[in-house]
Amino acid sequence: MTKFTGFAMKRLNEVGWVEKEKPECGRRDAIVKPLALSPCTSDIHTVWEGAIGDRKDMILGHEAVGIIDEVGPDVKDFKPGDKVIVPAITPDWEDEAAQRGYSSQTTEPLGGWKFSNFKDGVFGEYFHVNLADANLAKLPESIEPETAAMLSDMFSTGIMGAENAKIKVGSTVAVIGIGPVGLSAVAGAAILGASRLFAVGTRPNCVDVAKKYGATDIINYKEGPIDEQIRDATDGAGVDAVIIAGGNMDTWPQAVKMAKAGSKISNINYLSGADVVPLPREAWGCGMANIDINTGLCPGGRVRMERLASLVEYGRIKPELLITHRFKGLEKVEDALMLMKDKPRDLIKPVVSIKE
Amino acid sequence: MTKFTGFAMKRLNEVGWVEKEKPECGRRDAIVKPLALSPCTSDIHTVWEGAIGDRKDMILGHEAVGIIDEVGPDVKDFKPGDKVIVPAITPDWEDEAAQRGYSSQTTEPLGGWKFSNFKDGVFGEYFHVNLADANLAKLPESIEPETAAMLSDMFSTGIMGAENAKIKVGSTVAVIGIGPVGLSAVAGAAILGASRLFAVGTRPNCVDVAKKYGATDIINYKEGPIDEQIRDATDGAGVDAVIIAGGNMDTWPQAVKMAKAGSKISNINYLSGADVVPLPREAWGCGMANIDINTGLCPGGRVRMERLASLVEYGRIKPELLITHRFKGLEKVEDALMLMKDKPRDLIKPVVSIKE
Amino acid sequence: MTKFTGFAMKRLNEVGWVEKEKPECGRRDAIVKPLALSPCTSDIHTVWEGAIGDRKDMILGHEAVGIIDEVGPDVKDFKPGDKVIVPAITPDWEDEAAQRGYSSQTTEPLGGWKFSNFKDGVFGEYFHVNLADANLAKLPESIEPETAAMLSDMFSTGIMGAENAKIKVGSTVAVIGIGPVGLSAVAGAAILGASRLFAVGTRPNCVDVAKKYGATDIINYKEGPIDEQIRDATDGAGVDAVIIAGGNMDTWPQAVKMAKAGSKISNINYLSGADVVPLPREAWGCGMANIDINTGLCPGGRVRMERLASLVEYGRIKPELLITHRFKGLEKVEDALMLMKDKPRDLIKPVVSIKE
Amino acid sequence: MTKFTGFAMKRLNEVGWVEKEKPECGRRDAIVKPLALSPCTSDIHTVWEGAIGDRKDMILGHEAVGIIDEVGPDVKDFKPGDKVIVPAITPDWEDEAAQRGYSSQTTEPLGGWKFSNFKDGVFGEYFHVNLADANLAKLPESIEPETAAMLSDMFSTGIMGAENAKIKVGSTVAVIGIGPVGLSAVAGAAILGASRLFAVGTRPNCVDVAKKYGATDIINYKEGPIDEQIRDATDGAGVDAVIIAGGNMDTWPQAVKMAKAGSKISNINYLSGADVVPLPREAWGCGMANIDINTGLCPGGRVRMERLASLVEYGRIKPELLITHRFKGLEKVEDALMLMKDKPRDLIKPVVSIKE
Repeated sequence: MTKFTGFAMKRLNEVGWVEKEKPECGRRDAIVKPLALSPCTSDIHTVWEGAIGDRKDMILGHEAVGIIDEVGPDVKDFKPGDKVIVPAITPDWEDEAAQRGYSSQTTEPLGGWKFSNFKDGVFGEYFHVNLADANLAKLPESIEPETAAMLSDMFSTGIMGAENAKIKVGSTVAVIGIGPVGLSAVAGAAILGASRLFAVGTRPNCVDVAKKYGATDIINYKEGPIDEQIRDATDGAGVDAVIIAGGNMDTWPQAVKMAKAGSKISNINYLSGADVVPLPREAWGCGMANIDINTGLCPGGRVRMERLASLVEYGRIKPELLITHRFKGLEKVEDALMLMKDKPRDLIKPVVSIKE
Repeated sequence: MTKFTGFAMKRLNEVGWVEKEKPECGRRDAIVKPLALSPCTSDIHTVWEGAIGDRKDMILGHEAVGIIDEVGPDVKDFKPGDKVIVPAITPDWEDEAAQRGYSSQTTEPLGGWKFSNFKDGVFGEYFHVNLADANLAKLPESIEPETAAMLSDMFSTGIMGAENAKIKVGSTVAVIGIGPVGLSAVAGAAILGASRLFAVGTRPNCVDVAKKYGATDIINYKEGPIDEQIRDATDGAGVDAVIIAGGNMDTWPQAVKMAKAGSKISNINYLSGADVVPLPREAWGCGMANIDINTGLCPGGRVRMERLASLVEYGRIKPELLITHRFKGLEKVEDALMLMKDKPRDLIKPVVSIKE
Repeated sequence: MTKFTGFAMKRLNEVGWVEKEKPECGRRDAIVKPLALSPCTSDIHTVWEGAIGDRKDMILGHEAVGIIDEVGPDVKDFKPGDKVIVPAITPDWEDEAAQRGYSSQTTEPLGGWKFSNFKDGVFGEYFHVNLADANLAKLPESIEPETAAMLSDMFSTGIMGAENAKIKVGSTVAVIGIGPVGLSAVAGAAILGASRLFAVGTRPNCVDVAKKYGATDIINYKEGPIDEQIRDATDGAGVDAVIIAGGNMDTWPQAVKMAKAGSKISNINYLSGADVVPLPREAWGCGMANIDINTGLCPGGRVRMERLASLVEYGRIKPELLITHRFKGLEKVEDALMLMKDKPRDLIKPVVSIKE
Repeated sequence: MTKFTGFAMKRLNEVGWVEKEKPECGRRDAIVKPLALSPCTSDIHTVWEGAIGDRKDMILGHEAVGIIDEVGPDVKDFKPGDKVIVPAITPDWEDEAAQRGYSSQTTEPLGGWKFSNFKDGVFGEYFHVNLADANLAKLPESIEPETAAMLSDMFSTGIMGAENAKIKVGSTVAVIGIGPVGLSAVAGAAILGASRLFAVGTRPNCVDVAKKYGATDIINYKEGPIDEQIRDATDGAGVDAVIIAGGNMDTWPQAVKMAKAGSKISNINYLSGADVVPLPREAWGCGMANIDINTGLCPGGRVRMERLASLVEYGRIKPELLITHRFKGLEKVEDALMLMKDKPRDLIKPVVSIKE
């Protein structure tokens, strides 16, 4: 029995290296070795905020590009040695929720999210991927693994934020929060038709990338209520779409207040910190101002990854700009995760490269 | 100068008859005399709950069918003597919000709502309608004025609730609240593809109409939390769409808890009673369960009224079943309104018929 | 090795009984024995018009309700003895076309259609179903097998016709052709919001069912060009949606001519008889009248069948009204097919019942 | 009575200068003097191909930016001296087709198109604009009149082509024809989420702009059937969306053949030259391959122009790259038109600047 090591949540508030048996590869599944890994804020939530409850010795991580080690006998399109983009969300495509059009919600709400949730994540020498043909995408030769690792969750989520915001050509858009997901939403809004594009944030690195991704106005929340700043900048009109990619529960009333009647609010923030999400009754038109609120979980699966990779290949998005810190060697995944926890001011995303 | 009388909000908490000068008819407008009138719960909110703030001597009412008294020189399709359905919402069709697709939100949020909000309502011997050609619909001969008066707001709002719930063919739907708007939503859900259709309410008259309108299951909130009852009835699955047409702020967490991942919540309740609409973070999948929340204000205008009338003509909806109390003579609008305020258990909608 | 018999296309223009080996059941598949079968016009096209080219000894049929004989080891939700609705279209749910939202087009255009196309159909003692968990639906106890057999293709296709017609509440709709698919489209339009609903056809049985399914006006093509009749009936306006469920290539110009600017034309007719589908340039507004043309292949899979069954259970549709001729015993499938070929004037759909 | 001159279609096949009385300004209308004008291919179709039938002394032109000379008494947002973008399509916003969501089709099919169709166009010292508040947009100071003139029709139509193609993020798109409308469609596809973007055309100027607008692959129809070239380039898959912006009736079968099952074909070509638009039955999946065909007429009105102008202001589109030939003085509109008729190989769009 092959043993391998991975970096795990040992229990709430504790992380460390564990040794495990190499997972068995199902008939339609694959075993993958990582080439590029990136920790996510939700790994931090998982370990230190108990976001998904307690877990014992569960390997962390859900953003990866890898190389196939083994495939099950029913896998047709992949073979050992293939380099692949691994989506954070690996749906059960035959499930009723997928048939209804909600592939991230298969088997149960948020059930498409398996890595570092229901099973070991990708921060190990090996990891298991369900339904290889349906959930893996070939890594195009022209894309570096580290760049592609930004697609697994960051860009898939950020762009979904823009999609759910139902941006129309020439819409004005505000993105609240410009961490890596918010920046991806900025990029998504820009390639989906936004004209004026407000990005709310302050960290210089993030502001710089926001502009490169298409933000036209930067709003600093330290300079006053952000809804007032955006109302002022738009002669009182407000914006056609708001994407919530950060902040806290107080962000919600502000989001509604900056939204035009007839606009959409699209949430991509994993909400925490209070039991109730507060919508402001009056600003929401007593529930009658046609301000819809759309949500979702990062889309996964092969076609999504192929389409995002295609956007990179054809120069529409530049995920590599998110990467501020680079590490080499699987053992550095620990440093990368702790960096994510400490969140130094110049951090957007760390990435760990692993030799083939 | 012609004087006329109408039943008005004299100030907060006080109603009474007022005498006013007949309004001037703009070039594209019409002056209409009522044939059938119905008070709405929002008239009650306006007077006794201060929902829209204070008003002085403002004639109440926004649900009417009438006969044209006068038209402006630029009106083409209507002439004095024509019987017309008058929508509660009379949009400014050239406004930018209408061009964006939100005709109920023209000039300002909820700005398409003019009667008994920005100007005198329909509970008078005469009332003024802006943009006659665009906002009035001819009353088909086969429809009684009293029946058609149920289209102005009740059926337009209720059916919008079903439209915004994005019902797909065979969807399961829950309608919370079966007052007149909720019942219209039941009818709307039934003609838009619902299969199993839960109606939440208890009053026998309403339950009876709900069944006639297509409800397949009645949920009595006195018998336990409604979300639990509906989860149980669906083997835990929940429903594809929830329409909120009543209740209070506590209804919101229940609505989210009965919704499947991937479902829609459509609000048609004029929210009051608290500053914050509370969404339950966890049941809402931490903002990631693809449970969208859609809202709107009753669609108005000519085409909407024509289409609703067409549904009556061709037997798809039976608005007359909402009418439980009938009065004769404009002076009885006071009794009808007070009935709406007192809300006897057997009331759904009162209607006042006025001789031509 | 078990042998079984089935009724097959022996080659172009020739049908007959064949003996075959019982198909092997894949790990996720099922072997089913029929309880109710119905031939489809496309079986006729297949044999006598060469619609899909030549086939040797291919068992015909794709409309069935059955009882499970055997399931593969990876099937979770079904077991031998379960009664099931079998959709005509059994998609490969992991395929990229399904991930794009087009499950009927998996693996290749129209590739979700497997029965009596790529493999033996359902007119045998046994038939094979791919992906049992994803493609079979349990037959509710309250629905007769014969009724449910009308859902496999007829109602799934007809209702899709109404869905693709993008009917809005109160839309006027015309359905051209009221054979079984057209009648299902009439039913679909009625439960998706149509007000006035024209049905074009002449056969008394069909006209009768069309009315029961919600048609409000019957148009007889023998009494003049149908577009003119419908224009006349609508004071020149035309209709908001046209569903093409029959006719021939000459139907297309008529369909466009009866469509309003801004309407939709939805095709559900398997087109044959000419190489070119002719759109009339001028009536189509030189390609600028916002008259969109939508198409599709019958949706399949478990959720679709469950939703259609739910519509039957809750009384929204009555598929049994399509059945005009009933046979007993698998051997009678030959008679049923020949009846479909001969198309007597009183035929809508024949069904063959097989004892458990 | 003020007289003014304009360049007109005198009758079929004949153009020339005419003198007319200055039009009367309706109460809600404006009289505008041109600052920048551009002829359109449809002016050529109108005069020399009889596309809209015969007209006598009708001033040509529908692409303009101007300065307001006079407004009617009911106009609120504009005054003499304001510089304005004038859309080619000036809808009747209160009309039933606008209420249905089809503002370009008001009063009759294509009825939003008034300039050089139902009334004198913009190639005169003065022209009349209906519904100034609803149909004019202020010219932002940062945009040159000549650039903005490209929005009136070219960019509004081209971008509509991309909108109707229902491009999803990462879609592959083909634009057939890269004259000015096709190039605008290329720009539209690029800002609405396309990844790989094929442009079909050969003229070097156009190819150059296509690349600047986001085309990733240029297909030369002289090098073989374009559908085969595009199928080959995509490993047989075809594209997710096809925009027809040129070619002739033979383009239609090619468009269908390059389209994936589940793709959209969006037409923005004003079709002429044959009575029938031929769809290829077999490649179209016998009408069942989920290949929808969407059409439309250039969207007009104030909000559309404001949104397009906003795209220019925020750097999303660069309409000025369409302009290859510049003229000065109203009298040069004749040369500009004849240039459009002669279509030299280096022409994309001519523009005529007129001093304030």
